[in-house]
Amino acid sequence: MADPTVSSIDGKLAEEFSIPTHVEEVKQKMAAFATQHASAGRRVVLITSGGTKVPLESRTVRFLDNFSSGRRGSTSAEYFIDSGYAVIFLHRHRSLYPYTRMFSTINMLDALQLKGGEEVVVDQQVLPDIAKVLKKYSEVKESGLLLPVEFNTLSEYLHMLKVAAQALSTIGSKAMFYLAAAVSDFYIPASDMPEHKIQSSDGPLQLSMKMVPKILSPLVKEWAPQAFVVSFKLETDASILLEKARRALDTYRHQAVVANLLETRQTSVLVVTLNTQAELLLTEDEVKKQVEIEEKIVSNLTAAHHVFITQQAG
Amino acid sequence: MADPTVSSIDGKLAEEFSIPTHVEEVKQKMAAFATQHASAGRRVVLITSGGTKVPLESRTVRFLDNFSSGRRGSTSAEYFIDSGYAVIFLHRHRSLYPYTRMFSTINMLDALQLKGGEEVVVDQQVLPDIAKVLKKYSEVKESGLLLPVEFNTLSEYLHMLKVAAQALSTIGSKAMFYLAAAVSDFYIPASDMPEHKIQSSDGPLQLSMKMVPKILSPLVKEWAPQAFVVSFKLETDASILLEKARRALDTYRHQAVVANLLETRQTSVLVVTLNTQAELLLTEDEVKKQVEIEEKIVSNLTAAHHVFITQQAG
Repeated sequence: MADPTVSSIDGKLAEEFSIPTHVEEVKQKMAAFATQHASAGRRVVLITSGGTKVPLESRTVRFLDNFSSGRRGSTSAEYFIDSGYAVIFLHRHRSLYPYTRMFSTINMLDALQLKGGEEVVVDQQVLPDIAKVLKKYSEVKESGLLLPVEFNTLSEYLHMLKVAAQALSTIGSKAMFYLAAAVSDFYIPASDMPEHKIQSSDGPLQLSMKMVPKILSPLVKEWAPQAFVVSFKLETDASILLEKARRALDTYRHQAVVANLLETRQTSVLVVTLNTQAELLLTEDEVKKQVEIEEKIVSNLTAAHHVFITQQAG
Repeated sequence: MADPTVSSIDGKLAEEFSIPTHVEEVKQKMAAFATQHASAGRRVVLITSGGTKVPLESRTVRFLDNFSSGRRGSTSAEYFIDSGYAVIFLHRHRSLYPYTRMFSTINMLDALQLKGGEEVVVDQQVLPDIAKVLKKYSEVKESGLLLPVEFNTLSEYLHMLKVAAQALSTIGSKAMFYLAAAVSDFYIPASDMPEHKIQSSDGPLQLSMKMVPKILSPLVKEWAPQAFVVSFKLETDASILLEKARRALDTYRHQAVVANLLETRQTSVLVVTLNTQAELLLTEDEVKKQVEIEEKIVSNLTAAHHVFITQQAG
């Protein structure tokens, strides 16, 4: 019998979050990608990355957003590929992207030079790693190990994640979900939304936002019950972090939570499972050498995924 | 005697919107830029561009945003420079930027090629205009006609605009304000803001947002009373557009409103002044030839600015 929570979430998803027109097409692509790589003996990770946009008006001028550059997700994608995974990169439109993330902070025109009147070359004093990164990027593109899928709004994110889970369910425990996106907890149902831009002449703004359904629940229980699922917790208050991670594992019964604080998220995370917790840290020396904490997170989780697959098979 | 509205807005600005640390330094830079170019006989335009971020928490995870890619502002900056203006480009961090805007939608790595093992060149089949754009960009950089200043939050925007107005007041009617940024109408005062991330376990979210002070009022009346000031109106409802533009001119007594609808803003705008209104349109043929409506807007306004300067002098 279906879990009542799960079916109510499914119902809400269909009613209150508009379905992107191309969702079935994307589902087919993801399913084909997963099957192809799993048959070749590869594991497949679905990474979600970036923040979600929650419109306040149906012809949207204003929206609620979540802080997320997409750094965690895009960086992790590179390390998953290095570890032999095929990666579905479900990311917010214009958030950081694997490989290109390295020069996201510069104005590209400042790194280009005219040469001999016609040719335009990259100034490698400005971008010293560009040849290496470009080579890597081209190899990955050639190999077909990276499938990018974009979302923009919360609705798009939720529906895309649902079909991704269904598409990956066919490869069972070989699938990992690495849910690093910063997803809004609140939304305004389509039926409550004004069509036009809210007028400031009407006075101060009272917004009443509903809680977003906890999609992790149907994902773990129904859509991809055999997969290895990792969720993320970002907090600003250190005193509640571990407790919140444990509570999430208790509630959803998934495999791991990566917990971190906004201010130290680049150098310190906790990987929490039902029976363990590991603190991953960058030393000062590692920071100097530009080691990235995502390398450690991915290494920890791919090892745990390996154990998980073995246990499931046994 | 000081206008009571103006002084109350000034007070609110100081109390409820935190002052960016580098605001005085930016003011000095803008003042020097304005004086230098005005002495060389140039007019100076301050362009605001992109949306503002309104934090919901003081250690910010969530924020309210306004839709704006910065296309209008960044495109206009190029045409103002072509028309002989010096441009202060006050823009949202990571919004579209003059010249680079042309390849904002592509992944730069898809446009690069390794050549002879070491050199990295731009593939001009992917970016056919790159040599021309780079040449133009370098000339403008060399000439010092573009001063970029960034903001991120609404507070930063408001304070930066205030000091910009004060900095430009020294050049009188030679200054134009082209206020194309999409500025939030609502905010949460620092004193009402929770420090930590709002917890979704506390249930649905009730947000009560105050109205942002109408900064156009002190800008026109006090900070830069001799300048030529252009504000923008973006609506989704055509039936209220013109009336809202007229009401703004009545209230603030500035020189022009550029009024446009969200859906047709790339091909049609109204330039409204106290006694005139001009509809600027792109024909189908112009759209095909990639004429940009900003060329027409800037041409209309620079002509009006010229008349304004002559009248002020007479």
